Amino acid sequence: MNRSRLYDLLRPGASGSSARIFRAMHHAMVAAGVTVMLVDTVEAWRQVYGVLFENVFHLISAFFVAEFAVRLVAAPGAPGAELRPAWRARLAWIVSAGGLLDFLGTLPGLLNLVFETRDAILFGLIWVFKLVRYAPGLLRLRRAIGNARQALLSVLLGFLVVLLAASSLEYLIERGAQPDAFGSIPAALWWGIVTMTNAGYGDTVPHTIPGRMLAGVVMVCGIVTLALSAGILATGFAQEMRRHAFLRTWNIVAEVPFFQTIGASIIAEVARLLRPRDYQAGAVIVRRGEAGDCMYFIASGEVEIDVKPERLRLGAGEFFGEIALLTGAPRIATVVATQPCTLLRLDIVEFRELMGRHPELARVIYDAAHERLGASSDKQLRHHDVALDFGPSL
Amino acid sequence: MNRSRLYDLLRPGASGSSARIFRAMHHAMVAAGVTVMLVDTVEAWRQVYGVLFENVFHLISAFFVAEFAVRLVAAPGAPGAELRPAWRARLAWIVSAGGLLDFLGTLPGLLNLVFETRDAILFGLIWVFKLVRYAPGLLRLRRAIGNARQALLSVLLGFLVVLLAASSLEYLIERGAQPDAFGSIPAALWWGIVTMTNAGYGDTVPHTIPGRMLAGVVMVCGIVTLALSAGILATGFAQEMRRHAFLRTWNIVAEVPFFQTIGASIIAEVARLLRPRDYQAGAVIVRRGEAGDCMYFIASGEVEIDVKPERLRLGAGEFFGEIALLTGAPRIATVVATQPCTLLRLDIVEFRELMGRHPELARVIYDAAHERLGASSDKQLRHHDVALDFGPSL
Amino acid sequence: MNRSRLYDLLRPGASGSSARIFRAMHHAMVAAGVTVMLVDTVEAWRQVYGVLFENVFHLISAFFVAEFAVRLVAAPGAPGAELRPAWRARLAWIVSAGGLLDFLGTLPGLLNLVFETRDAILFGLIWVFKLVRYAPGLLRLRRAIGNARQALLSVLLGFLVVLLAASSLEYLIERGAQPDAFGSIPAALWWGIVTMTNAGYGDTVPHTIPGRMLAGVVMVCGIVTLALSAGILATGFAQEMRRHAFLRTWNIVAEVPFFQTIGASIIAEVARLLRPRDYQAGAVIVRRGEAGDCMYFIASGEVEIDVKPERLRLGAGEFFGEIALLTGAPRIATVVATQPCTLLRLDIVEFRELMGRHPELARVIYDAAHERLGASSDKQLRHHDVALDFGPSL
Amino acid sequence: MNRSRLYDLLRPGASGSSARIFRAMHHAMVAAGVTVMLVDTVEAWRQVYGVLFENVFHLISAFFVAEFAVRLVAAPGAPGAELRPAWRARLAWIVSAGGLLDFLGTLPGLLNLVFETRDAILFGLIWVFKLVRYAPGLLRLRRAIGNARQALLSVLLGFLVVLLAASSLEYLIERGAQPDAFGSIPAALWWGIVTMTNAGYGDTVPHTIPGRMLAGVVMVCGIVTLALSAGILATGFAQEMRRHAFLRTWNIVAEVPFFQTIGASIIAEVARLLRPRDYQAGAVIVRRGEAGDCMYFIASGEVEIDVKPERLRLGAGEFFGEIALLTGAPRIATVVATQPCTLLRLDIVEFRELMGRHPELARVIYDAAHERLGASSDKQLRHHDVALDFGPSL
Repeated sequence: MNRSRLYDLLRPGASGSSARIFRAMHHAMVAAGVTVMLVDTVEAWRQVYGVLFENVFHLISAFFVAEFAVRLVAAPGAPGAELRPAWRARLAWIVSAGGLLDFLGTLPGLLNLVFETRDAILFGLIWVFKLVRYAPGLLRLRRAIGNARQALLSVLLGFLVVLLAASSLEYLIERGAQPDAFGSIPAALWWGIVTMTNAGYGDTVPHTIPGRMLAGVVMVCGIVTLALSAGILATGFAQEMRRHAFLRTWNIVAEVPFFQTIGASIIAEVARLLRPRDYQAGAVIVRRGEAGDCMYFIASGEVEIDVKPERLRLGAGEFFGEIALLTGAPRIATVVATQPCTLLRLDIVEFRELMGRHPELARVIYDAAHERLGASSDKQLRHHDVALDFGPSL
Repeated sequence: MNRSRLYDLLRPGASGSSARIFRAMHHAMVAAGVTVMLVDTVEAWRQVYGVLFENVFHLISAFFVAEFAVRLVAAPGAPGAELRPAWRARLAWIVSAGGLLDFLGTLPGLLNLVFETRDAILFGLIWVFKLVRYAPGLLRLRRAIGNARQALLSVLLGFLVVLLAASSLEYLIERGAQPDAFGSIPAALWWGIVTMTNAGYGDTVPHTIPGRMLAGVVMVCGIVTLALSAGILATGFAQEMRRHAFLRTWNIVAEVPFFQTIGASIIAEVARLLRPRDYQAGAVIVRRGEAGDCMYFIASGEVEIDVKPERLRLGAGEFFGEIALLTGAPRIATVVATQPCTLLRLDIVEFRELMGRHPELARVIYDAAHERLGASSDKQLRHHDVALDFGPSL
Repeated sequence: MNRSRLYDLLRPGASGSSARIFRAMHHAMVAAGVTVMLVDTVEAWRQVYGVLFENVFHLISAFFVAEFAVRLVAAPGAPGAELRPAWRARLAWIVSAGGLLDFLGTLPGLLNLVFETRDAILFGLIWVFKLVRYAPGLLRLRRAIGNARQALLSVLLGFLVVLLAASSLEYLIERGAQPDAFGSIPAALWWGIVTMTNAGYGDTVPHTIPGRMLAGVVMVCGIVTLALSAGILATGFAQEMRRHAFLRTWNIVAEVPFFQTIGASIIAEVARLLRPRDYQAGAVIVRRGEAGDCMYFIASGEVEIDVKPERLRLGAGEFFGEIALLTGAPRIATVVATQPCTLLRLDIVEFRELMGRHPELARVIYDAAHERLGASSDKQLRHHDVALDFGPSL
Repeated sequence: MNRSRLYDLLRPGASGSSARIFRAMHHAMVAAGVTVMLVDTVEAWRQVYGVLFENVFHLISAFFVAEFAVRLVAAPGAPGAELRPAWRARLAWIVSAGGLLDFLGTLPGLLNLVFETRDAILFGLIWVFKLVRYAPGLLRLRRAIGNARQALLSVLLGFLVVLLAASSLEYLIERGAQPDAFGSIPAALWWGIVTMTNAGYGDTVPHTIPGRMLAGVVMVCGIVTLALSAGILATGFAQEMRRHAFLRTWNIVAEVPFFQTIGASIIAEVARLLRPRDYQAGAVIVRRGEAGDCMYFIASGEVEIDVKPERLRLGAGEFFGEIALLTGAPRIATVVATQPCTLLRLDIVEFRELMGRHPELARVIYDAAHERLGASSDKQLRHHDVALDFGPSL
């Protein structure tokens, strides 16, 4: 196996069964490692199962050391890295976020060997961060938070100012009544943060009337802070998700011959209406007799439609499922993917919009359905003809 | 009564008085069943009313067994099921979510009979899930959560990583000071989740200064998690609601002759402006003398307008209520539904938009109002003519 | 004073100094009434100031009885009520929400007189609801909640199902360890609601490990419930606010001659860009030397511009403030309202949009500014000419 | 140094190294001052380090007195202030928000000197508010809160009404069982606010069953209040952020010759697609070999492109980075800012939109890329030609 294929196998989003097996093992190892770390701190369990825990820990450590070594070997297989000598590609990988994390992941086992200390198991916590690589959504969360940085920092500054001011005031008000809990501003700050985040442990509580009135104001300020943060992140995150989805769909749509004919000027608009879906070979996309509220365009791969007595094969650029969408009747045939497929799904809501904005496209779909059904099924479609009479503009 | 009508009667959204009576009984039985289950666990009450509780429990159980039997009989009456033999339709129903739930709903009673155990009453909890079928909004919530799945999972992963890291750190910091509450990481995790969700029971509280500083950070992380979740769900849910409303309105609008003439290319746009409303026969839609801020298109059914001395009847495809909308005066006639009606309501805000985007439609409405009012009322409309002068574009 | 003027005086949004004085007195009475009710329950204070409290209470009661009587007299003065006999208008008012509340507001005093009981002071709580009439925003909140009713009910049902299921499970898990706190499901429900709303009193806390794991899940469910509610209400409320603002602005814009010439088809769009503002006579709208980031259209009233050496008066349909907007320089004149005015404010952001969408309107504004400044100031505008060169489309 | 330059140096957003040094010192002083105030209240620390704390306090006080003096001297240097005598500019500054804050900031030190009291250190809290001037995001938060004022006040009124009603009821229910905690309504209000904000200290908890049921309702009301506030602020804040970003970008875009040619009527639209970014001289904007998902327009400044063997310089109005955007290949050259630059960044998502809405602009970019790459690289671009075939509309 050459480096490039090895690299590809280890990629978070890689398809294929070996890549899946690796990922499953990786995640199981992380889960096992964290579990061992957790249970090993319980004295009672350690005394009984301590040796078992340590052995499992060694096994997991070995796995992560091996993973680090394999990734190091594969590093020059990264796309674009072929221009540089192998050692530079490896160095670049090690100092990257992923490489550093994998390097840190080898430490718990090594520390245990070198210092012969059981406490090394605690470092197993590092392994949980290895999961971050497999959560692409976190990246978009980080960007959303990054975009709203200035606003969030303002909220945080406001939070800190209110926290400090309220704690200082509460210190002045309560220090007489409770010299222990409110004996200094740092002590009052503990009360302040517990109250303002509405965590409300209840271990320090104001006793005087002005102190309680101030506490009420602080609690309401806490709600406002929370509401502001939610508002800020709602905006930023929605935008980030929409951008990401649009970009992915656009790239797929632009490759489909059917849409190429309509010109780049409206691909952007069509891309907003479609949603890409991936299917494994053999997956059933549409089942005969089900209700149908969407149609599909084939971006890549091939599907087989079981219209008895014959079987029809459709490839990239063709579409299916439009008949149930137009007639409202259940699906009349089962559709199965014969190869791994990427389909573009057009839901009925978005089909209605397409009809409104680009009637010429909807007309193409309507004509195809008409032809496929043949003259005998004419009545079915006519019932809904009103929806398909594209008005005086055609 | 044939299967198909029976099936229809049991459908969650069925109209008609027998369907309503069934639903009311069903909900009452669920409420009674859950109440019996609750109160039966209170020792004092059980000793006094135990026999009563058990009898009510038997009654409710019998009702749900009967419901299961009736639904099983009716299963072949489902739309599209007539193509299959009756036993296959029944089997398909039993393995569906609804069928399984109804089957589980028969168990509390059966267990009580078979094992003669009072604890079977506890299984009555299952009945509460029968209500889920009657809450279509839950379906859309589930879809909204499903659409935001990846983002929510990322937030959850982040939540878990922070939770684990913070609990482990707090364990290291506090185990010296509080060997009981922070004696192991699993014990510290209890503190972690209570703090990070801002529940703040206050049963385990850090005592050291670094422990409290970490706790403050954890609380703020909890607020950010909450804010992120709210932001994610706000986006997804709004979208899901809009899609659902649009689809329903589109289907109604497309059937109204008045709108058919305008062509499918703008039905989608008009469908965004209208809101469907259902009325029972005899319902008063508009009352003379009220302020009028909307007009209605009749999608199906018939209404009677009481314009003294005569009574006017309007059917599907016609509209009314536009006069008060245009003149700003109170309603000049009462409108009553003579049959169950579906009306499409156009609020004044949306009428303004329609005027802006499709002046030709607004012109039709204006002309009709003019004609209905006659020459004598010309002055009333003229006062607002500015709003109806559709500018140079006409 | 006739009934109609009296009615108008008592209207929540009435202008004029007598209406203001009445409102101020009303609110002060409500505040005083509630304060008396609060402090009268404190034993120590009642013993000392009891007689004072009672006297104030009598005074306030008398005020609200008087208010009820006056409103009853004024009821026939409501718009549209002149068609009915006076007693019917009064009856209609009493059974309305406002009338009922005012009637209830007379009860505390009457009960105190009739039953000679001091506890009547507690009924003063009713008075606080009288404020609701003066908060028009509450109406829109209620509509927003009403629009999202179905979704909120679904969330509530989900909340109840989770609450019930979790409490029942926790009862089974914890009843052995804590027979007091978790001795019955109703008792466990108390724990459930305290945990699921993340209030977290900490008076009942699970002790077993499975009980704590379940508690963690319940807390997270509570966060999701909160996030869902926030998401649902965010959508609905934003929509309601936009509708309200649009409707109000549209009505004002449609009356301004300047905008009438542009045709109804774009009034809706222009109405989105403008924000109405009310000014008292004598109010300073724009101050010489300030930075200017908006211009104003006069919807009604009159303003005086102090361009030395003379003073210019502008009336309804004219505009001012466009020069600072175009040149970026500070305001060159002070503008004062000589009568109560309603102005439509066009912020710089929206002016940029107007420029983009309706360059012909922006051109009108530009030409006026050019003319007002005269040839000498030509250079100032030219510096920004790029922004005003409306491209090849003109 | 003249007043105008001095004023500019002290401006929050000033660039240049002296302005930065001043800001860093200022923030460090605030942080130190607050820290001293905090630790000085801890008895144990004060006894040991008290003298040190006091000396640091004097130093910081001196700094803020000096800052006040310098700002007073510089006040006449404000833009537009040159028309007035210097003393009026200074007076105007002192009574402004910033001037008042700076004046208050001199008090802690002065009070300490005049009254010789150690408690003056506590007044150091005022210094933390000096940071507000440096957080422009807070201004927009305030405007967002201001815009949603009416809605937030309505929520607050609802919150208060529910709080008062619930506390009064709980007082009636619980006063028998807990005469201490619920002995008066003011006492019950403490329970009410702690419960309704979901802080949940747990120091006062209802014991009776009706009391607990009411508490459950109050907790849910608290969640609804929070959800409503979040919803309201989400709307307002998103709008405020978008307005601010649009205005800033518009002002930059309108100055770029490249966009001037397209006419003001679409600058507003283009301004929505671009994001301004500032770079210091010497900053690396694009690095050879990186993935490229955006292109840049130069609004001001100059950049150097290292296309071996020669170096290319581009100035205001030109653009770069479009080749990687079009081909999808890694960046083929490194770009460095030779002067402080303001660039307008066009991300790939927005480039797709531009392509859809204004194909003529995208065509210009495409042609430039074609020319720069030359004939030899024709194949690279052709692979993506589909995305660049601007359809029949060209």
